[in-house]
Amino acid sequence: MDALESLQQSVGYHFREQPLLLQALTHRSAGARHNERLEFLGDAALNFVVAAKLFARFPKVSEGDLSRMRARLVREETLAEIAGKIALADSLILGPGEIRSGGARRDSIRADALEAVIGAAFLDGGFSAAERIVAQLVEPLMTDDLGGEELRDPKTRLQEFLQGQGRPVPVYTLVAEKGQAHERRFVARCSVPGAEATEAEDGSRRKAEQQAAALMLVQLQVAVRG
Amino acid sequence: MDALESLQQSVGYHFREQPLLLQALTHRSAGARHNERLEFLGDAALNFVVAAKLFARFPKVSEGDLSRMRARLVREETLAEIAGKIALADSLILGPGEIRSGGARRDSIRADALEAVIGAAFLDGGFSAAERIVAQLVEPLMTDDLGGEELRDPKTRLQEFLQGQGRPVPVYTLVAEKGQAHERRFVARCSVPGAEATEAEDGSRRKAEQQAAALMLVQLQVAVRG
Repeated sequence: MDALESLQQSVGYHFREQPLLLQALTHRSAGARHNERLEFLGDAALNFVVAAKLFARFPKVSEGDLSRMRARLVREETLAEIAGKIALADSLILGPGEIRSGGARRDSIRADALEAVIGAAFLDGGFSAAERIVAQLVEPLMTDDLGGEELRDPKTRLQEFLQGQGRPVPVYTLVAEKGQAHERRFVARCSVPGAEATEAEDGSRRKAEQQAAALMLVQLQVAVRG
Repeated sequence: MDALESLQQSVGYHFREQPLLLQALTHRSAGARHNERLEFLGDAALNFVVAAKLFARFPKVSEGDLSRMRARLVREETLAEIAGKIALADSLILGPGEIRSGGARRDSIRADALEAVIGAAFLDGGFSAAERIVAQLVEPLMTDDLGGEELRDPKTRLQEFLQGQGRPVPVYTLVAEKGQAHERRFVARCSVPGAEATEAEDGSRRKAEQQAAALMLVQLQVAVRG
């Protein structure tokens, strides 16, 4: 089986128009019909399909966390890794300069080509074709621990951090309430024995506390590393 | 006809699940079932559908320019304007604080709700529903002059700028070529009598000249304003 055939099996979609797939695999160094416009299209398709899948899979996760989860899935590093798994480099079409300098191993070239393949699939087979590739390649990465450390709330993380060092739990106090009723602002303080207190302001008291906790966490982590 | 019915006519899509539409119109100030997650979804849908439509409509435009055109179409200001045209504010559901402070007139609240409506439409009627709303509301803005001033190349703009002031045309010189054959870098200089020359470097000579022209343009425009 040739590389192109094997690639189409790996991405879970077979192109009706093979020239479209070839264009998606063509780096700009290789000629005029290169993949940059397809990459623009594919990047948008990927972002949307991943957003839709995360939205459905994590019904209780806030939009901010969904957005962070997505960023993790669509970043160059992740895409280059996926491209590695499906041996996309074997099908890349590069100019002679890029071939000599090992362009096929570059994360950016691989990630861009993967996006371009998704864009080309959308043109070739409509939205469902782009969806199929994302379902095949990206959906398996949407695990429950995708959120990971960063998505847990700062107050929880701060408490765990302090417990890990055998220190007392933090104390939160509301130090000010500003503004009129409909645009109230809260200033929360986070105090930890032996550390400078941190303060943060927000329209929600809970968020102000979370932000003060995040600041404290940064301060303590810098102290540990220093 | 009530506001909700009229809104659905204006966006070109009638919801099967009215509660979904109501949630899209609910600002976070008004309760727990607010539109922030739908906004996340709708933002991604909008970005993709606009990308796909621009891709098809402007087959010769580079990915960079497509990206700039899209940014213009999906920015808050544009979306708030569209929301204004379809009287979306009449259907917004806001908390008492936001009502008192005139939240329905805020660009961000309107733009977010419009995105949320697109996200809700996708959930309600699939990709084609989101596509229909974008076709109805955003596609009319995809005119040939969408690119506008910024999308014309800097060398052309610099020349026109100088002609407008009755000054001589700029002169471009190649001041250096660096690197090996497959990764050649070009340094171009743009000279205009009475102004400090500008220089820029790029892997393409043409692009280096364009960048030098852009720098000159900035410099001359600052001088004019100063």
